[in-house]
This record gives sequence, structure tokens and C-alpha cells, in this order.
Amino acid sequence: MSSYSPTCPFCAGNEDKTPPALYVLPEEAPRNERGWDVRVVPNRFPVLLKPTDGPESRKRTHHGLYSEMDGCGEHEVVIEHPDHSKTIATMTVQEVTGVVRAYRHQFLELDKSDWNQLIIIFRNQGEGAGTSLVHPHSQIIGVPIVPQDVRWRLDEAQRYFDDNGTCVHCDMLDAEIREGIRIVATNPGFVALCPFASSVPYEIRIVPRRHASSFGVLADEEAELLARILKDTLGRLYSLLANPDYNYVVRSAPHHSAGEPHFHWYLEILPRLTTAAGFEIGTGINVNSVAPEAAASHLGKAC
Amino acid sequence: MSSYSPTCPFCAGNEDKTPPALYVLPEEAPRNERGWDVRVVPNRFPVLLKPTDGPESRKRTHHGLYSEMDGCGEHEVVIEHPDHSKTIATMTVQEVTGVVRAYRHQFLELDKSDWNQLIIIFRNQGEGAGTSLVHPHSQIIGVPIVPQDVRWRLDEAQRYFDDNGTCVHCDMLDAEIREGIRIVATNPGFVALCPFASSVPYEIRIVPRRHASSFGVLADEEAELLARILKDTLGRLYSLLANPDYNYVVRSAPHHSAGEPHFHWYLEILPRLTTAAGFEIGTGINVNSVAPEAAASHLGKAC
Repeated sequence: MSSYSPTCPFCAGNEDKTPPALYVLPEEAPRNERGWDVRVVPNRFPVLLKPTDGPESRKRTHHGLYSEMDGCGEHEVVIEHPDHSKTIATMTVQEVTGVVRAYRHQFLELDKSDWNQLIIIFRNQGEGAGTSLVHPHSQIIGVPIVPQDVRWRLDEAQRYFDDNGTCVHCDMLDAEIREGIRIVATNPGFVALCPFASSVPYEIRIVPRRHASSFGVLADEEAELLARILKDTLGRLYSLLANPDYNYVVRSAPHHSAGEPHFHWYLEILPRLTTAAGFEIGTGINVNSVAPEAAASHLGKAC
Repeated sequence: MSSYSPTCPFCAGNEDKTPPALYVLPEEAPRNERGWDVRVVPNRFPVLLKPTDGPESRKRTHHGLYSEMDGCGEHEVVIEHPDHSKTIATMTVQEVTGVVRAYRHQFLELDKSDWNQLIIIFRNQGEGAGTSLVHPHSQIIGVPIVPQDVRWRLDEAQRYFDDNGTCVHCDMLDAEIREGIRIVATNPGFVALCPFASSVPYEIRIVPRRHASSFGVLADEEAELLARILKDTLGRLYSLLANPDYNYVVRSAPHHSAGEPHFHWYLEILPRLTTAAGFEIGTGINVNSVAPEAAASHLGKAC
């Protein structure tokens, strides 16, 4: 694949095809012409729009049984690399570290606003993962509510905390390290593992060893360690499964729960090797024909 | 497309490619050779296996923080038509009525076993909906647990019942009929509508007018009315969107909640026109660019 596409809005040299940058790395690099390594821009087709009229926008309108609100929030694109043909697996550790630092910077920016009750960082790789743009990029969205699915994860973690006085994710991490059969890779800051009862083949969770509810508290040395294990893990997927489509998402505590002792942020990688069908839709249970122990073993040997 | 495929296990004449039938319509038709209209067989690749050792199979094995159980249940295929090239939209009402009656018969069969805590009937149409087999068929699975996603739907309906003393689905149906802007089709037994805040473009819910928690209580005349509106609705989708891939699923109360006054069974049709990506995975919120009012209007005019 060519490293430059004249029609790609994210390629270096095509900066005029996007709105002006919100942030670049290195911070002193030109923002809207060649010379940047990572460039963050507003999404031209945002799923949520920045609110213009303060608390008014948060109001619900009631229609009988239903209520609705404006789709308020923020939606940014992290252009990960000037080169059209790169992906996390094929970048250098230094380059991926830049991507992670840009995530953290924009997470903290969005987190300044009470509007953004949940900040979600994600990456869609390949058409099967819902993207049509090839150029390496991630997205960050500030969401004005805490969705039910997220509340449920928090509630389950809180229930465990109330019963045991410890963080369920810390306890799982300890147990996984002791048992060792679902570990893909480790470094001093992070553990990559295929979770027990994985929902899809080759699901991987990258869990920080240090307990923290919010991704926003990531330290500089952790940013580099996260970049290392992310590149390593996605590199294993890339070589074992021939560059599969995948989504990854950073699951971090909502804005107002950032100090809670029971939640623990992590990054979840979901390869798109199968299609959810009626059974999954009807039950919420996923059928997974690759045991996580086998997936971890295959991934552990790949490089 | 040809009406017969020599390699298709579901085509009339190829009955030896499946396990012996569990049920056929007409009931007096030959079960394992040509002559049936609808034929139900065990799935040769079941996601859950019939338990062999009674209550023992229900036991959980504990591994530290985790627990597991055998994948016990039942998994059947409803071969909807002898002809390879048909689909619900192109069958006659009489043929679809046979399919609905086979659903009901097998639902009641599976419901006899305490094992099957939830019975799920679904149909996957097209590769994008997770099926590789073209021959028209549906599936029925008996699930040995009530999954969290299903419990959540029941809990929300119960909360509404506790607050209001009425079924939320009955109340929504009344409001939808009064307002009229999301209705696709109606008949004396059922209403097809695009739900408020639909999760995907052209989502359709077929709701029985008669309050009932369980699909199993479907009366004979309701079976025919359901067949009529199902064929009509899928026919509209077929012509408006050029035979799109879709899943449908019957959402019925679990075995032990069948008498509850707060739940109301319905059939949910989800066209597969878009791909869920990182935002949907991370938040559980779906981005839908087709308002249900517009979808209902387009579908209402299609035929």
C-alpha cells in the first residue's frame, strides 16, 4: 500500500481536508501542514455535537412515555501517523507512544468539561470493524450520559468491592498472573491476557498493574509501557491472523466515578473474526469456538 | 436461484443429510423424505448440547474467582420450506403460518423441560446476519440460564409495572397506535412498528395486541395473523431495501417468568445495514442515521 493517498483527508500534506488541528505531537510541530507525528482534529461527521447553550442542552424533552435529548458531546479523530499505510502493529514503539500520549492529552481535555460524563477512546481497524478510512486513526468521543451497559459494569465491580473490599480487576489480574494460562504478554506496567470466558475468538484485555479507575491518570512511563504492550500484542494478532479486522476500546470510569476504588480501567481488543447473529442478539451470550487458553497460547508463540 | 441444491442439507430430497426430524407439517407427512412443508431437525452443530446426566449437568465448577458449567440445552433447526430459493417475504401466508405453528409447537416442547430456562427463536437472513446456509430456515435454542441482558429487560419492565400497575409494552403499543407516526402495518392481532429511538436503521417490532408474556400461548388465529404481518413486513423490507440481510428474534419471557404480568413478548427484526464499531462496543449506544419515523413512513409506502 502506498504511504500517501492524494484523496485521504488524514495524509500529511492534505491538512486542508480536515478542520484545524486541536493538538499535535511534537507540540511545537506545525498543526496544519506537514511536520507533525500525531494530529488530533474534530471529526467532520461527529456522532455528537458540542453543546452551544450550556445546561439547556442537557434538558430532556418528554413525549408521553419517551424522553429525548440533543446529541451533545465531542468527537475527535486521532490521526496516528503521517503515513497512509501504517498501523499500530507496524509502527515503532516511539510512534505508538505518541499515539497513547495524544489519547491521554485529549482525554484530560475532554474531562475538563462536566458535559462529558463518559470519555471513550476507540480504534476501528478494517471494514469488518466498521471503518471505511484506511489511514491509521483512532477516535475519542465525549458522551453526555453514562450508558446502561457501562453502569452495569460499574455496578458489578461495586458489588464485588462491597463483598470483598478489593477491586475485582486487581484480584483477577493477580489470579491470572498466578495461573499463567491466559497470559499473552507482560511488562512492568501492563499485562495482556485473553479473559476467562472471552466473548469472541482472540479477545485480549490489556490491564494496568497499578490500580486506577481512570485512564486519565496514566503516568509518562506508563504511556510508554502501554505503547510497548499494545504494539507487541497487535503485532502478534497481525502475524498470527494475517492482519485481522479488530476494534479496541479503552474502558475507563465515567467522569463522576473517577475516584471510585472498585473500577479499574483497561483496554479491550476484539478481533472481528465472526458475526454476531440471532442467538447473540436474543440472549446477549456470545458463542466463541476458540478457548481463551488456546488463543493465549497461540498468541504467546506468535511474534 | 435454483429451487433445489444437491449439496444443501435442508432441501427436499436430501433428508438423509440431517438427523431424523423432530417434527414436520403437515403432521401426517413423511418426516424423512419428500412430502413435508415444514421440517424441524436437531442442529448438527449445536451451540448447546442436550444434558445427559440430569441435575448434575447444571452444576457449576468453581475456579477461584470464576465459575463454569457445561453448555447444556437444545438446538433445533426449523426448515421453513422444501424449496431452496424461498424466503419469508416470498412465501405464501399459508406457508408462513406453517413456520409460525412449527415455532409454537417446538417452543412448547422445549418449554416442558425445566432445563430450558429461556427459549429463543431466531432467524438469520444472509451472510451479513451470520448465516452461510441459503436455504430458508430458523433456529430454536433452549438456554439453561436467564442471561443478564434478558434479566435487564425484565427488570426494567417490572420497575415500570411497580410504578404504574400496567405493562409498559401495552402502554407503548397504545401510545404508538394513537400517535401513528411509527406504525408500519397492523392487523387485528398485531402491530408492526419502528420503535422510538430504534437501535438500527429500519428496526421493526411486531407486537401482539393481546398481553402475554410468553410466545407459547399464541392461539391458532394469532398464528395466522402473525404470519400475515411477518410476511407483509419482511416483504416491505425486501422490496424497499432490495432483500437486505437481517436477523429476527422472538423475545419471550423465561420459563419461570411466563406468568408475570409485566412482560410482553414480541418479535424484533434487525436489518444488518450498518456495522457496530468501537463506539457501540464501548458504550452500548447505537448510532442510527435513519429516524424510526422516516423508516416507518418509507416502509408504510413500500409493498
